[in-house]
Amino acid sequence: MKMRTRRARGWTAHPKRRTPPGAPPGIIAVDPLAHKPQIEVFAYGPDQVEQLSIPDPSQLSTLLGKFPVLWVNVEGLGDADVLQTIGDLFGLHPLAMEDVVNLHQRPKIEEYGDHLFIVTHMVSYLEDRLDSEQLCLFLGQNFVITFQEEKPGDCLKAVRQRLLGGRKAIRGANADFLAYSILDAVADHYFPVLERYGERLQEYESAAMSESDHRIMAGIQDMKMDLLSLRRLLWPLRDLLNTLLRDDFPAIQKETQVYLRDCYDHSIQALDLIEMYREAAASVMELYLSNLNHQMSQVMKVLTTIATIFIPITFVAGVYGMNFNPQSSPLNMPELNWAWGYPFALLIMATIVVIMLLFFRRKKWL
Amino acid sequence: MKMRTRRARGWTAHPKRRTPPGAPPGIIAVDPLAHKPQIEVFAYGPDQVEQLSIPDPSQLSTLLGKFPVLWVNVEGLGDADVLQTIGDLFGLHPLAMEDVVNLHQRPKIEEYGDHLFIVTHMVSYLEDRLDSEQLCLFLGQNFVITFQEEKPGDCLKAVRQRLLGGRKAIRGANADFLAYSILDAVADHYFPVLERYGERLQEYESAAMSESDHRIMAGIQDMKMDLLSLRRLLWPLRDLLNTLLRDDFPAIQKETQVYLRDCYDHSIQALDLIEMYREAAASVMELYLSNLNHQMSQVMKVLTTIATIFIPITFVAGVYGMNFNPQSSPLNMPELNWAWGYPFALLIMATIVVIMLLFFRRKKWL
Amino acid sequence: MKMRTRRARGWTAHPKRRTPPGAPPGIIAVDPLAHKPQIEVFAYGPDQVEQLSIPDPSQLSTLLGKFPVLWVNVEGLGDADVLQTIGDLFGLHPLAMEDVVNLHQRPKIEEYGDHLFIVTHMVSYLEDRLDSEQLCLFLGQNFVITFQEEKPGDCLKAVRQRLLGGRKAIRGANADFLAYSILDAVADHYFPVLERYGERLQEYESAAMSESDHRIMAGIQDMKMDLLSLRRLLWPLRDLLNTLLRDDFPAIQKETQVYLRDCYDHSIQALDLIEMYREAAASVMELYLSNLNHQMSQVMKVLTTIATIFIPITFVAGVYGMNFNPQSSPLNMPELNWAWGYPFALLIMATIVVIMLLFFRRKKWL
Amino acid sequence: MKMRTRRARGWTAHPKRRTPPGAPPGIIAVDPLAHKPQIEVFAYGPDQVEQLSIPDPSQLSTLLGKFPVLWVNVEGLGDADVLQTIGDLFGLHPLAMEDVVNLHQRPKIEEYGDHLFIVTHMVSYLEDRLDSEQLCLFLGQNFVITFQEEKPGDCLKAVRQRLLGGRKAIRGANADFLAYSILDAVADHYFPVLERYGERLQEYESAAMSESDHRIMAGIQDMKMDLLSLRRLLWPLRDLLNTLLRDDFPAIQKETQVYLRDCYDHSIQALDLIEMYREAAASVMELYLSNLNHQMSQVMKVLTTIATIFIPITFVAGVYGMNFNPQSSPLNMPELNWAWGYPFALLIMATIVVIMLLFFRRKKWL
Amino acid sequence: MKMRTRRARGWTAHPKRRTPPGAPPGIIAVDPLAHKPQIEVFAYGPDQVEQLSIPDPSQLSTLLGKFPVLWVNVEGLGDADVLQTIGDLFGLHPLAMEDVVNLHQRPKIEEYGDHLFIVTHMVSYLEDRLDSEQLCLFLGQNFVITFQEEKPGDCLKAVRQRLLGGRKAIRGANADFLAYSILDAVADHYFPVLERYGERLQEYESAAMSESDHRIMAGIQDMKMDLLSLRRLLWPLRDLLNTLLRDDFPAIQKETQVYLRDCYDHSIQALDLIEMYREAAASVMELYLSNLNHQMSQVMKVLTTIATIFIPITFVAGVYGMNFNPQSSPLNMPELNWAWGYPFALLIMATIVVIMLLFFRRKKWL
Repeated sequence: MKMRTRRARGWTAHPKRRTPPGAPPGIIAVDPLAHKPQIEVFAYGPDQVEQLSIPDPSQLSTLLGKFPVLWVNVEGLGDADVLQTIGDLFGLHPLAMEDVVNLHQRPKIEEYGDHLFIVTHMVSYLEDRLDSEQLCLFLGQNFVITFQEEKPGDCLKAVRQRLLGGRKAIRGANADFLAYSILDAVADHYFPVLERYGERLQEYESAAMSESDHRIMAGIQDMKMDLLSLRRLLWPLRDLLNTLLRDDFPAIQKETQVYLRDCYDHSIQALDLIEMYREAAASVMELYLSNLNHQMSQVMKVLTTIATIFIPITFVAGVYGMNFNPQSSPLNMPELNWAWGYPFALLIMATIVVIMLLFFRRKKWL
Repeated sequence: MKMRTRRARGWTAHPKRRTPPGAPPGIIAVDPLAHKPQIEVFAYGPDQVEQLSIPDPSQLSTLLGKFPVLWVNVEGLGDADVLQTIGDLFGLHPLAMEDVVNLHQRPKIEEYGDHLFIVTHMVSYLEDRLDSEQLCLFLGQNFVITFQEEKPGDCLKAVRQRLLGGRKAIRGANADFLAYSILDAVADHYFPVLERYGERLQEYESAAMSESDHRIMAGIQDMKMDLLSLRRLLWPLRDLLNTLLRDDFPAIQKETQVYLRDCYDHSIQALDLIEMYREAAASVMELYLSNLNHQMSQVMKVLTTIATIFIPITFVAGVYGMNFNPQSSPLNMPELNWAWGYPFALLIMATIVVIMLLFFRRKKWL
Repeated sequence: MKMRTRRARGWTAHPKRRTPPGAPPGIIAVDPLAHKPQIEVFAYGPDQVEQLSIPDPSQLSTLLGKFPVLWVNVEGLGDADVLQTIGDLFGLHPLAMEDVVNLHQRPKIEEYGDHLFIVTHMVSYLEDRLDSEQLCLFLGQNFVITFQEEKPGDCLKAVRQRLLGGRKAIRGANADFLAYSILDAVADHYFPVLERYGERLQEYESAAMSESDHRIMAGIQDMKMDLLSLRRLLWPLRDLLNTLLRDDFPAIQKETQVYLRDCYDHSIQALDLIEMYREAAASVMELYLSNLNHQMSQVMKVLTTIATIFIPITFVAGVYGMNFNPQSSPLNMPELNWAWGYPFALLIMATIVVIMLLFFRRKKWL
Repeated sequence: MKMRTRRARGWTAHPKRRTPPGAPPGIIAVDPLAHKPQIEVFAYGPDQVEQLSIPDPSQLSTLLGKFPVLWVNVEGLGDADVLQTIGDLFGLHPLAMEDVVNLHQRPKIEEYGDHLFIVTHMVSYLEDRLDSEQLCLFLGQNFVITFQEEKPGDCLKAVRQRLLGGRKAIRGANADFLAYSILDAVADHYFPVLERYGERLQEYESAAMSESDHRIMAGIQDMKMDLLSLRRLLWPLRDLLNTLLRDDFPAIQKETQVYLRDCYDHSIQALDLIEMYREAAASVMELYLSNLNHQMSQVMKVLTTIATIFIPITFVAGVYGMNFNPQSSPLNMPELNWAWGYPFALLIMATIVVIMLLFFRRKKWL
Repeated sequence: MKMRTRRARGWTAHPKRRTPPGAPPGIIAVDPLAHKPQIEVFAYGPDQVEQLSIPDPSQLSTLLGKFPVLWVNVEGLGDADVLQTIGDLFGLHPLAMEDVVNLHQRPKIEEYGDHLFIVTHMVSYLEDRLDSEQLCLFLGQNFVITFQEEKPGDCLKAVRQRLLGGRKAIRGANADFLAYSILDAVADHYFPVLERYGERLQEYESAAMSESDHRIMAGIQDMKMDLLSLRRLLWPLRDLLNTLLRDDFPAIQKETQVYLRDCYDHSIQALDLIEMYREAAASVMELYLSNLNHQMSQVMKVLTTIATIFIPITFVAGVYGMNFNPQSSPLNMPELNWAWGYPFALLIMATIVVIMLLFFRRKKWL
């Protein structure tokens, strides 16, 4: 089994929020090290689709109202002005805009007047570790705006292809169907990641039975923490989808809800798998530890048995190594001068060994 | 105890979904390796029953509406066209049809307009492992359609026999009673499987007390994971049956609900058993580990005691093996020339052994 | 502590249901080995009571409607015809009658038209194991019918005595009060059984602190499984009583509900005790294991210490047992010819022992 | 740390109920060994208060209706007639009266017509163990009746003093305020008891880090069971207070509910503390066990290291103690006749020791 | 890793309540050792703000009603008269005032007529331990009164700055917005504290893999207890904020609720983190213990192996140290006089060592 290099887990990264405690609400506190935003626009209707890359957010105003649906995808959160401009243009709530730049948010859904604000996370499995990227989505009457951190790649490629490929189903539908498609792509991307953990589990399991490389422990513990992180992202996503299903949001149409139910089912299935993997990981660890313990016991048993067999016969040898003077008395080690003395001593030793081996064998210690 | 061969557990098999993430909804993504569908039809009413094997799904249209109840049982999911044809013929929802070919679904119930869609799993105990086969059921006003993977055997034999055997109860009733009969057969088949685990538990328990074959550990862990899988299939089945009981589905008649309550009771009973077995498995493992530990302790105690008894007397022998010259001084090992020197030395050793044995005995170490 | 003989726990007995999976509902599937039913009837009103033993169930029809309350108690479930006759006579639902012969049912309450069907279990503590016997009760407007397995003894003796003893309270009341009295007798019988487990706990606890008989482990594990079984019987009984309290069953009168509340309280109290005992059993086991471990450590420490003290002095003896020739050089073991050589060597050994003892003492290892 | 003497825990005491199973309801089954009841009466109104000790319960009838509030406090439950008389005088329900003499009841509240029946427990910390005494309280329109076991002392002293001390708040209020005051005194008395456990925890914690007295284990286990008992008493008390707050009992006035909310808060706080202590106790035990294990390891490591260092040099000594005859061949142990033979042997031994010490040091085993 | 000094955890401090059990309600029981109260007032409206330090609480009456919002911040709870005066002036409920001086209250919200009473806690990380300070807040129509213990520093500095800095948002709003700002500052201050625990976790994790300093155990246990304390403070805070969101308090305006939702989100996020850290701490401890165990095993294995190799060859040396007389018989140790006797003996020993080493190597014990 190839061993993974231990990864540094960024415990502290999680709670790092950009907005300092006690700051007034509604401030967009940008991380100065973050990349400048890249704006990509899909403007489409049943019969047309335009894909644009826009350098200046104010250009968006020219597109407003001209297309049935407008999808603005912003990658990189490094410029407060750009974000502010977009927020003002579409009338997004300041508290929601503040959340956009606060990474490591909990997935949630919030209704602000006429638009919905959804926070979710795209996950990927990168260099043996779990990686997640926050995706904020605003759904209005005729627009969808998504903000993601600037990380290479996202899981929306398939959505873009369906838009450009001219599939009626998505192009003819409203903005809420696009939002569903994005959420579904996000939720479905948990499965390939989970599959990787399934493979790792299998590796660990076969390793746990044969090898005794102690790095398995750290590997399983890492995996358990990753599964925990996944669960932390999926539980609220499930709740979020449930809220979308149950509540009567004007932005969500009846027909779209049937599809959301499907998406909700997938999130439950993924959660089920996570629980299963967590139990399996605990089980594999238990197996490994008991196996290690068992191996250790076997070693100690054999070693101690060897020692125990030799100790009595070494004693016999010690006895006949004593220097009592046979000449001063016939009682003093007469064996030393017997003709058969030495063979006799060796015989005693052999007898001791045989008796002990038989004893150990009968007790099933060997 | 005969030891089972360790089975490879297909962790990764579970999340393998046919539909790739981000794909448009409603696509029937068939596994190219799956078998071609075999269509078996039961068309019946109070006084007649016909069992047909149909090679071409379009033939089904000739049967439509001619019988009070039509049961179409499809085995094998390897042809998208066949499935599509059946779906179109009975007006089944595309999202449901997509789920039919996605194996390892969570049991669930969904209402699509006038028909119910139910996903459940038939379990069996095959070569010391749990095997499950997905069964999708559509219940309409006058038809039941079941889709199952192409695996040899199912648990619906008894239902077929009751149909053919001319039992009034089932033939005179509506489609919902047939659906109940199928669900009941599925739920009841959990019991013989559970019985097998009960037998294994008993084997493990007696083995845990006497043997120290470390493969028990892996066996119990396997069993725990199997019970977990069973629970994952049964919990949602229980919920599904509860939904059928509580909600007011037009497809389910009042009289059938009494029978469903019975079926629901059985699912709870099976869940109870699973919980009991899980706790018992944990208990047996605890017992085994503590027993192993205890045996190990006993071995070490005896071995160490033997060593400890011989070490002091070996020392005595060592002392009298020293080469101090008795001739250079009367203080130098005069014992060596004593008449009773050797018996005296042996007596010292015997005394030490007796004292130590008494001491160990009093301390209850032996 | 007297050790109990290990009992074979019938894991597989539990799921054994008489009705094979897939069988049509409503069939009374009798165990051919079960005893023939014995029918005992109490027909009573405020001023009269008759206790009859009836060989033929059809005789019951002559008693019907002649007394305010009729209690038919059937022991032994070995004759389907007899059960069917009684079921038909009182109009009992076929599904309920099917459940009567299926042992190891979960306690439950079901309403079938005008009568209630209650499944519960009488427990006893027999030869150091938990024994339970299913009791099915039908409560109609003016009758109570109870079915129990043919096991010697039941817990209804006190109820019979109160009926015969002419206590107004029970004789003057309706059938529902009799049903309450039976349920209360069943629920109250959990307490003496629990008391036995309390006594065993106390035995185990004192044993855990002093002895190291490893059979305690198996005993506690047995007890934990028994408590689990008790909980499995009591939880649904509690729910059942709660249902009787909350729901508005026409068969239960307002005045009887006050008494049922009392009975419900007792079931909660018994459940509380079970939880307490389970935690206590876990605690005793922890104590025992830690104690065992501690004893083992003490033994190993002393043994190893003895060995460690002798090893260095044995080495010293070994040194002076070397055969270097003092005559070939004044550097070669001149000690051997010293006048005080031997005492000197003994002194060295004594010094080593003292130093080591002091060292161990200071480190608190002895 | 002073070690507590192990106390015998009365497992079996708990389920001992006076009323035998199956007995008719409403019977006051007195414990023949219990003390005779002592009746103490407080009859008061805004301007007057009388404290009486009444030998005969029938005298109570003369006080009835003469004072705004009557508090009858009965200590000792050893006379069924006395209890019956009081019950009849105030119209208390027979089922409630039956519960009064059944000790170890679960705290509960029950409404019987115009009066409330409350069961609760006063706790104290007596000789290193938890002691509890059942307190039953009846609250009627203008009376409060409390029954307690005959144990020295109760926690109502402060309530009595407030009555006698002429505090308007309590004397001017209705009977429900007195009931609140009693319940509040009971609930508040959990805090000093909990404080004692807090102190014990602190003792155990410092002991766990330094000493290795194995009695700590039993002490912590005792404490865990005590905390469990406390929780068993407090959870239902909390529910009881919540019921008093939410439900609309005619006997409880609006103004009193504000005070009950306060009392309810305290019960939650006490439960919080218990949970905290339980987790802390588990943590201390874990610490102790790991510490013990660590100490043991250290001891074994040092001992084994000593042994391991001496074994090779003892072997060297053994080699030069062999009796091969140097005269029969120049190959036979020529070292024995070397001029520097002995120093050479000692040097070899010293070298071995130094190398091993360096090796162990580098491996950080020493 | 720098090791923290073990801190004394004040278990007993928690339940110490000022009010003795059984005392009449509504009494302000001041701790005589507490500091005298310091009163700081912010009186403000959209266009003005005044910051005053008031020595005498009666002066507050002159400010009453003159400003849109009055914030009275009291630090130090050592004078019952001062507290009473403030309570009377603003009409605060006596039961709430009693709670103000009872430290270690559970966070809660209570409605007393026209004002809300909120108890919460400010946390900080002081000298490697968690420190908390109770903050009681009264929110009336046009005032906010906060009481805090006299500890240096609080987390309200940012709120004060926003008030003085003339930010319209806070100054133009009502008293409820000020209350929100204070609660938000309190809730947000949990994050920097949690970050410190995240850093400690990371330290412990890397230490657990490499070092074997047993103080890690105590450190992790301390941290677990701190996280437990944090959770005990945060859970009710979360409930409190939820109550503020759901219930319709007249004191809270619609617009403020949007902001409270944000604050509520943060509290959930902090709770999520705590759960994550708790699991991670358990995982790190498991890792540490298994690592320690593994290291120990490695040491013991090597040491025992060394001993086991030397014991057989020491025996061989012992054999040839026996003093059997070769002259009395040709059978008696003829090896001693062989020309190659000594090399032969050494060869035997070397062979034994090589065989054992090969054996151990093949068994992977070395």
